[in-house]
Amino acid sequence: MPSSTITDPAAPFAVSLGDPAGVGPEIVAKSWVMRDMRGLPPFFAVGDPASLRAVWGGPIRVIDSPEQAVGAFVAALPCLQVTHAGPITPGQPTAEGARAAFEALEAAVGLARSGSAAGIVTAPVAKEQLYGVGFVHPGQTEFVAERCGVAAHNAVMMLAGPSLRVVPITIHVALADVPRTLTIDLIRARALTTAKGLQRNFGIARPRLAVAALNPHAGEGGAIGREEIELIRPAVESLAAEGLDIRGPLSADGMFHARARETYDAALCMYHDQALIPIKTLHFDDGVNMTLGLPIIRTSPDHGTAFGIAGSNSANPGAMIAAIRMAAEAARCRKLHGG
Amino acid sequence: MPSSTITDPAAPFAVSLGDPAGVGPEIVAKSWVMRDMRGLPPFFAVGDPASLRAVWGGPIRVIDSPEQAVGAFVAALPCLQVTHAGPITPGQPTAEGARAAFEALEAAVGLARSGSAAGIVTAPVAKEQLYGVGFVHPGQTEFVAERCGVAAHNAVMMLAGPSLRVVPITIHVALADVPRTLTIDLIRARALTTAKGLQRNFGIARPRLAVAALNPHAGEGGAIGREEIELIRPAVESLAAEGLDIRGPLSADGMFHARARETYDAALCMYHDQALIPIKTLHFDDGVNMTLGLPIIRTSPDHGTAFGIAGSNSANPGAMIAAIRMAAEAARCRKLHGG
Repeated sequence: MPSSTITDPAAPFAVSLGDPAGVGPEIVAKSWVMRDMRGLPPFFAVGDPASLRAVWGGPIRVIDSPEQAVGAFVAALPCLQVTHAGPITPGQPTAEGARAAFEALEAAVGLARSGSAAGIVTAPVAKEQLYGVGFVHPGQTEFVAERCGVAAHNAVMMLAGPSLRVVPITIHVALADVPRTLTIDLIRARALTTAKGLQRNFGIARPRLAVAALNPHAGEGGAIGREEIELIRPAVESLAAEGLDIRGPLSADGMFHARARETYDAALCMYHDQALIPIKTLHFDDGVNMTLGLPIIRTSPDHGTAFGIAGSNSANPGAMIAAIRMAAEAARCRKLHGG
Repeated sequence: MPSSTITDPAAPFAVSLGDPAGVGPEIVAKSWVMRDMRGLPPFFAVGDPASLRAVWGGPIRVIDSPEQAVGAFVAALPCLQVTHAGPITPGQPTAEGARAAFEALEAAVGLARSGSAAGIVTAPVAKEQLYGVGFVHPGQTEFVAERCGVAAHNAVMMLAGPSLRVVPITIHVALADVPRTLTIDLIRARALTTAKGLQRNFGIARPRLAVAALNPHAGEGGAIGREEIELIRPAVESLAAEGLDIRGPLSADGMFHARARETYDAALCMYHDQALIPIKTLHFDDGVNMTLGLPIIRTSPDHGTAFGIAGSNSANPGAMIAAIRMAAEAARCRKLHGG
């Protein structure tokens, strides 16, 4: 991994506004309104201020550089205009809007890479629209990884809420293809990145990892599937032998109730829904997506553009606020632990 | 399905004690202690009273027939002795104990079939031990189904807690085999049994069913798996055309948060952990397993024998109490709706 960026200790956070027709602008504005109540660090929006004005009547201060953000933040939502999104109608995505979302993301990453932003928080984009304007990455995570010089497969998605953190080892893979996608190396790599990410971003000196089984009842000793025996156990045992605090494979259905969650810092899951079902069941409104394995800090609210409610002033800023708070906490931890 | 048993309206419930070395006897005794506080209907234990005495100092009344249970229930836990379990050491299962558990189950089913019990509630058994004494069924559910004259594949497991009911369409199937196990007919059959079970046992006149997708993001229009297009959607559409209130396939990770759960009466899930993860995340201590598609009422606590804590007086009777209450509610509904 490239070495950590050296960040100005007083640098603000860059929040990309995402698709201008989605709920991004609204939840960023609402987060600013609640900045004191929720103890948020100074941040600035990156995108087209018109997308904020389309849904919000509060004070906006258009800034030229991140340095102006901290002073402006007290009285207005700072916005670094890097793009024009064209005509904006909440709920109606356009190609111009998608391009603007992409440019905002790119700018935010650059500012974090250069150290003038303490990290980035990304509002949701519409992938379908992005693909239409030539975006070639599966999602924002892969794009951010590339711009950070990290191979996409080394950027690890962690979803975190107040009582649970999960890492899906495979993500956008059809269920039928999950078993053949899993390898000992992949499980090991995800576990190591997760452990390191918990140390750097959450200040957990010796992270406790719990690894889910793939099959019901953890395969019942091979009677219901052999991946536990052939892949998961060897991966876990080799990591434990190297000193990681790691357990598994565990029956997935017994891992996510309140008492079980207290026994680990992150759950490594074999496939998308195994990770996403428990986190969204518990933390639908305040789940945060943090990318581990990057030199910069990157979080995002764990929800989409919600075009259906954009512009109706009904979007819940809980996950965006949680994402900004988690980025701030990660910055504190990295500072304390030297990167 | 065989026609419903005609049950004495005042009949008590039969509670099989399960493995005598497991937590079954303790949670049945504790349920009796809390009978008034939790509004439990009269019930009687079926098994070896010695297994109750091994873990509990409260009053036991050994009865000869279910008719004696209702009168005895006020002052003592009635126990119909159908078997001797041999020497009992909590936490140490034996072949004799497994045989006793099996005989208790068999007796309880017979009493419910004959109408002298209003339904059965089954405490946990140890499958490994049962297999050792010649039990040939995958679990208690299949045995109960057979004794009721119902093909095992028509007995449907529903797991229910205070805020969620789930039905796994495939159960003890390795994850790699799930896609090829699913068929339109299987999905349809499970949905129909579920809808009928909700009407009969829960009094829901027009049950709302939500059907989970198999793949992440419900397959994203075929980009991440085609089972939604080829199997799940056709099954759902054909059932909807027949008048069922059924929706799907839905992204599984968005189905189980509080607001989503309010929109349906049961979630149909494609595989074990897709159903079991959310129910156990939310209702680990009070989840109930109810078998749908049977002429008799059958519920059980959704946990195992817990040999590790048996005899330590630390078992939580919450799920057993919930199972008895759910059986009672089902009996009320069946009476009201004539079957």
